[in-house]
Amino acid sequence: MTIVTALDALSLFLGQRLSRSKHDLEQHGNSEAHYRAAPPDAVAYPTSTEEVAHIMRICTEHGCPVIGFGAGTSLEGHTAAVRGGVAVDFSHMNQVLEVRPEDMTVTVQPGITRIALNEELRATGLFFPVDPGADASLGGMAATRASGTTTVRYGTMRDNVLGLEAVLADGRVIRTGGQARKTSAGYDLTGLMVGSEGTLGLITELTLRLHGQPEAVSSGVCAFDSFEGAVQAVIETIQSGIPMARIEFVGADAAAAFNAYAKMDLPEAPHLMIEFHGSDAAVAEQSERFGEIAQANGGQEFRWSTKEEERRALWALRHNAYYAIIALEKGARGLVTDICVPISRLAEAVEETRADIAASRIQGPIVGHVGDGNFHAVLLVHPDRPEDLEEAKRLSHRMVERSLRFGGTCTGEHGVGMGKLDYMAAEHQGGWDVMSEIKRSLDPQGILNPGKVVRQN
Amino acid sequence: MTIVTALDALSLFLGQRLSRSKHDLEQHGNSEAHYRAAPPDAVAYPTSTEEVAHIMRICTEHGCPVIGFGAGTSLEGHTAAVRGGVAVDFSHMNQVLEVRPEDMTVTVQPGITRIALNEELRATGLFFPVDPGADASLGGMAATRASGTTTVRYGTMRDNVLGLEAVLADGRVIRTGGQARKTSAGYDLTGLMVGSEGTLGLITELTLRLHGQPEAVSSGVCAFDSFEGAVQAVIETIQSGIPMARIEFVGADAAAAFNAYAKMDLPEAPHLMIEFHGSDAAVAEQSERFGEIAQANGGQEFRWSTKEEERRALWALRHNAYYAIIALEKGARGLVTDICVPISRLAEAVEETRADIAASRIQGPIVGHVGDGNFHAVLLVHPDRPEDLEEAKRLSHRMVERSLRFGGTCTGEHGVGMGKLDYMAAEHQGGWDVMSEIKRSLDPQGILNPGKVVRQN
Repeated sequence: MTIVTALDALSLFLGQRLSRSKHDLEQHGNSEAHYRAAPPDAVAYPTSTEEVAHIMRICTEHGCPVIGFGAGTSLEGHTAAVRGGVAVDFSHMNQVLEVRPEDMTVTVQPGITRIALNEELRATGLFFPVDPGADASLGGMAATRASGTTTVRYGTMRDNVLGLEAVLADGRVIRTGGQARKTSAGYDLTGLMVGSEGTLGLITELTLRLHGQPEAVSSGVCAFDSFEGAVQAVIETIQSGIPMARIEFVGADAAAAFNAYAKMDLPEAPHLMIEFHGSDAAVAEQSERFGEIAQANGGQEFRWSTKEEERRALWALRHNAYYAIIALEKGARGLVTDICVPISRLAEAVEETRADIAASRIQGPIVGHVGDGNFHAVLLVHPDRPEDLEEAKRLSHRMVERSLRFGGTCTGEHGVGMGKLDYMAAEHQGGWDVMSEIKRSLDPQGILNPGKVVRQN
Repeated sequence: MTIVTALDALSLFLGQRLSRSKHDLEQHGNSEAHYRAAPPDAVAYPTSTEEVAHIMRICTEHGCPVIGFGAGTSLEGHTAAVRGGVAVDFSHMNQVLEVRPEDMTVTVQPGITRIALNEELRATGLFFPVDPGADASLGGMAATRASGTTTVRYGTMRDNVLGLEAVLADGRVIRTGGQARKTSAGYDLTGLMVGSEGTLGLITELTLRLHGQPEAVSSGVCAFDSFEGAVQAVIETIQSGIPMARIEFVGADAAAAFNAYAKMDLPEAPHLMIEFHGSDAAVAEQSERFGEIAQANGGQEFRWSTKEEERRALWALRHNAYYAIIALEKGARGLVTDICVPISRLAEAVEETRADIAASRIQGPIVGHVGDGNFHAVLLVHPDRPEDLEEAKRLSHRMVERSLRFGGTCTGEHGVGMGKLDYMAAEHQGGWDVMSEIKRSLDPQGILNPGKVVRQN
C-alpha cells in the first residue's frame, strides 16, 4: 500500500508507457509559474479510457496520488505532485472523435489542444471559441474552467462543455451531460467536473459546443484619455446590448511594452482592443456605435478593420502580452495575477492595483478581459532577486483581498491550484466545507490531485 | 423523532405561519400535473433565511421531510409530499433585494415570480429573460433548471443564476458564486444547486444575470410545406449564426387549435414563430435573412413586424398553447411531455412522435423550442376516462425512450420530479449513482424532498 508498490503494478501494466526518466519527471513537476518543482514519481501515458480506469484502480488499491496532466500551461501549480505519485499525461489521447456539424458539437479526447482542435474544425465552418491565450489542452481547460478573450461573447468552459466522460477515484467510468443542448435531468455533474482541477476525477472525453465561424469579423484598438473613460465605454457598450466578441483592456505601461516588443507606435495611454462577429452589415454597425460610445468617453478615433491580416496582427499582440511585458527587463519572469470583480467595481479595482504596483519596487503592467471584470497584472520578477518574488506575492495577495472586498473572486480563470488555496475559506466560507464534503464522498482516500482546491483530510 | 413532534416544535416557532388548514394542505399537495395528490402535514411560511434555517434544524432533529414550494407550477410532481412532512412555501419571501444596473445583476428572494420581477425591472432598461411560460417563482425555476422560449439566445437558469444562498439539510446557510461574471474558484456549487429540485438544500436568495432590453424586437410567424422544411430552416438559421431570440415550432394540429381558440386563420400546416432582438438595422437584416432561408425550405412568405401589439399577440398565442390545445376537447386536461434531442435528430424525433400519437386513441398537438431541440406534446386526457391517461403515459414513455435512443434527455426543462425518476438510471447509468452519493453526503437522513431526482437510501 505505497507509491512504490503502485509503481510496480503500473509498470507491469503500462510497460514503456510508464516513464521514470529524469527528464520526464522534471518536465511534469515544473510549471510555467513560480512554484517550487514537485515532480511526480512516474509519468503514465495512457492511450484509452480503459487504461486510465485501470491506472486509477491500481492507484486506489495502493493509495497512490494521481495527477492529471494536459499541456502543462497551468499558472497556479495545478500539476505539482506535492505528495508524489503518478502524473497521468493525456498527450497520447489527443484525437477528435466525432464532429457533428448539424448539432454544432464535437467530441474530443482531453489531450487535444485548442489550436489543434480549431485546425481540424476549419473545413466545417465551425470553431471552438474559448481562448485562454496559451495553447492549452481541452482537458486542462475544462479542469480549470478556463476562459479568455472571447468569454464576453461565447462564455467560459462551463458554458461550452456539453458533456464529458470521467474516471472516478475508484476506477468507475461515468458519462455526464450528452448531445442535447439542454437538460433538466438531475444534478449537473458536467458542471461539477468542470473546474474541479482533477480532484474529483480524470476527464477522458469531452463533448464541446461549437459556434459558426462568423461571416465577418471587425476589430480595432482605441486609446483613451483616462482609464475611467475606457471602463465607462465598456459598461455603456455592454448595457447598450452591442454584442462584443472581445473587449480587452491594455494599460498605458502594457501599451509601452507592446511598442517596444512589436515596434508599434501606440500612444502610451490606456487602450481597448475590440472585436465584433456577425454579418458584414452588423459588424460595421457595431463598430460605428462602439466608436461613438468611445468618443463620448474620451476615446480617440476608433479605427477598425475587417481585414484578416490586420486582425491577426492585433490579436497576436494581445496574445504575446506576457512576452512583451517580460521583455521590458532582461532576465525577468512574470508572475501573472488573476482577479475578477463586478463590472461596477472594475475601475476602482484596476486603479488601486495600478497605484499599489506603482508604489512597489517592481513593474507590473495590467491587461484584462474587461467585459467580464477580469484582469491580470504581469508582475516582473528577477529569478536572482528573491525580494522581487516576495514583493510580487505581496501585491498579488493584496489584489485578491481587494477583489474579495469588492465582491469579486480570487481567480477569474486560472483556477485555484496551490496558488489560491489560502483564499478559498474567505471567498466561500461554509461553501468550502461543502466542497470538501463532496470531495470526500467521491475520493475518500484523497488520491486525486492532493493539495489542490480543497484541504485534504 | 417523528413528523408529529417536528410539527409541535415548528408550530411553537412559527405560530400562525405554520398552517395545517385543509385548504392549505390540499393546495400544496396537488400540482398542475396528473399525479395523485400527496399533501404535506403542514405548510410553513418563513419570512427570512434565518427562519428557513431554524425550520430545517427542527426538521433534521425530528427526521421530518421538507419540501420547498414556489408558485406550484411544476409539471412533474416535484412538490408532492410522498412521505409527508412540511412544505416550505416561499410566498412571503418574494422581494427584490438589490438591482445593480452597472453589473446587470439583481438579487431576489426565491418567492418572486418572473412576471413580478420583470415589472420591477422595467424602469431600469434591463430584463430577466428566462421564460418558461407559466408565471413560476424564481426559486422554483432555479430548482428545476427551467428554460423556455428565449433559451436559444439567453440560456437556461443554469446560465442565468450567478450565485445563490441555500439552507442545507442540517441548517447551515451557504453562499455560492457571487457578483463577478465568472470565476474559477473551486467546484461550481451554484450549478450543483440549480436543478437539484430541493433535494440538496432550499434556495433562499438568488443573484441573477440581467440583459439589456433590446433597442428593437422583430417577430413573425411562417408556415411551411412540410415539417422537415421547418426543421431544416431552423438548422440553417442556427448554423448561419443569425442570433434568434426565440424560435418555436407549432405543429399543424396545434395551429388548428390556435385558430379555434384565438379566432386566427393560420394555415393548418407546420409553423415557426420567430423573434429577433437587436438594433433596428440588425433585426431588419436578421428577419430578411431568415425569410430567405425559410423560403428556400418550403416556407411561405415570412411577414415580420416590430410593432409591440403584434408581437404581444403572437407570443400570447404561444403562451396560451396549453389552453388552446385542451380547448379542443371539452373537459379534457393535458399531460405535457418534455424531451430534448440533438438538433440533428429533431426531425426524426418529432415525426416519430407525431405518427405515434396519430395512431393512438388520443390527440396530442406538438409545440416546441426547436432551437434547443426541445419539444412538447400536449396529450389530451379526459379525467373520467382512465384509459386516456394510460394511453398518454404510454406515449410519453415512448417519447422518452425515443429521446434516449437519439442521444437526448428525458427532460429538457420540466425536471425529474417523480415523473422522470424511472428514466434516470437509463439516461445517466453510473452517473446516477454519483448523484446519490452527493445527495447522501449533503443530506444523510434524506429529509430534503424525498422521492425526487435520486432514489432514497
